[in-house]
Amino acid sequence: MNHDPRPIGVFDSGVGGLTVLKSLLQKFPQESFIYLGDTARLPYGSKSPLTIRKYSEQNLNFLIKKNIKAAVIACNSASTQMKEKEFLGTPIYNVIDPSSEWALKLSSQKRIGVLGTRATIQSEAYDKALRKIEANTFVLSQACPLFVPLAEEALQEDPLTNLIVYRYLQPLLNQDLDTVILGCTHYPILKSSIQKVFGSQVMLVDSGDAITEKLKNEFSAETILPAAENSSANLLIFMTDESKHTYQLAAQILSPFSIDQMQVADL
Amino acid sequence: MNHDPRPIGVFDSGVGGLTVLKSLLQKFPQESFIYLGDTARLPYGSKSPLTIRKYSEQNLNFLIKKNIKAAVIACNSASTQMKEKEFLGTPIYNVIDPSSEWALKLSSQKRIGVLGTRATIQSEAYDKALRKIEANTFVLSQACPLFVPLAEEALQEDPLTNLIVYRYLQPLLNQDLDTVILGCTHYPILKSSIQKVFGSQVMLVDSGDAITEKLKNEFSAETILPAAENSSANLLIFMTDESKHTYQLAAQILSPFSIDQMQVADL
Repeated sequence: MNHDPRPIGVFDSGVGGLTVLKSLLQKFPQESFIYLGDTARLPYGSKSPLTIRKYSEQNLNFLIKKNIKAAVIACNSASTQMKEKEFLGTPIYNVIDPSSEWALKLSSQKRIGVLGTRATIQSEAYDKALRKIEANTFVLSQACPLFVPLAEEALQEDPLTNLIVYRYLQPLLNQDLDTVILGCTHYPILKSSIQKVFGSQVMLVDSGDAITEKLKNEFSAETILPAAENSSANLLIFMTDESKHTYQLAAQILSPFSIDQMQVADL
Repeated sequence: MNHDPRPIGVFDSGVGGLTVLKSLLQKFPQESFIYLGDTARLPYGSKSPLTIRKYSEQNLNFLIKKNIKAAVIACNSASTQMKEKEFLGTPIYNVIDPSSEWALKLSSQKRIGVLGTRATIQSEAYDKALRKIEANTFVLSQACPLFVPLAEEALQEDPLTNLIVYRYLQPLLNQDLDTVILGCTHYPILKSSIQKVFGSQVMLVDSGDAITEKLKNEFSAETILPAAENSSANLLIFMTDESKHTYQLAAQILSPFSIDQMQVADL
């Protein structure tokens, strides 16, 4: 098998995408990664398609200049505006398509819920992706705008969070959904609250699991080439804005992986 | 008295500063205003001093090119990083100093609470401004990071908001505060919840009232010149990102004043 030692780029609007990076690090210990969090302009999920597209292109430009072999758009809101397979000659992977594929694989009844930011839900990107694969899929979507601030405030264990989660999910209960897509990189942080409200019979799909599965297939098909098994893997983390709060939150999300250094990227 | 027909510039990280603009429109019907909301990069309150300063300078540059006679920095988080009196030769007014003066004028016991974003509270700008005027002022500050998203989601009437407001304000209760500064332009939207928790004996100071008082004094002193009484006043509103949600929220905040047009500013 051929190998490619170059890193994989991952970008997100902020630290939420570290939930995706963590899945990738766990699954592909030989790979090097460059992560870019656009913390100076987050959140994306409340912004317009045009602005999200502009920021996403700037992020990809930054990563591509670092000589990556592929880029993962961890941010769901950005993924809705970046559905192409290549950007400036570099393969790019959104999280919408793999999450939709994975959800349909898990779902026996093809009754699927989608949680996301306002931008993601309004784009109907998941509805389209799911129905493109399986035309008869029943899809129920819900924008949950307070989930990102709750996760950013690390309030996942707070009883208030349960109340807010229940409030948003209520319209999706008693609808016989068997699978729910966590369509935002921050939502896995609230996973236990979300699972509690839906009950344990509902399967939750997160972007990290889905994109990991996707890349595994791409490596097998040699669409992109993996690093050699014995490679010494590097992890570089860039943020467009840096603060103690950001660093602490990032360290908490990525644990047990540790952050040696966080560099500031000026886009 | 001399007059100056040029508009006054006002900027904020988003639509929250429209609470300030509304106070100005009510008090100075003869004045023209140009408002800039940096909705493409909001919020500021969770970002670093360096990034907030950079964005604030870009916003002021945009307004100054529009030939304004003065600029009001409605955003408290931006005000903490823009304490100078002039920028590129144009008088600029932060909201920290006028709000501190106004609070001390209202407070009989000089026991003052300050609510703000994480950036505003960490800067200790209010503590310093209050103690500079009245050295023995007792100041108790509290960052309330969820208030902005709650206001952005227009959840001010929601029982959940009361719970969250109570949670943040609890450390400030039973401290004999007689005056509390709403140190963020979004917080007046949650005023009734905040007033309920503190009780009616506590006076709430908002940036809009304070800056209006300040400008009234500046006009009297002819530091800046008012427009003539019979001027036909103009209102221009620019946002760096525009969406239906932003427009609706802006219209709701500014009511009964109406928004003829919202233009997109590319900084």
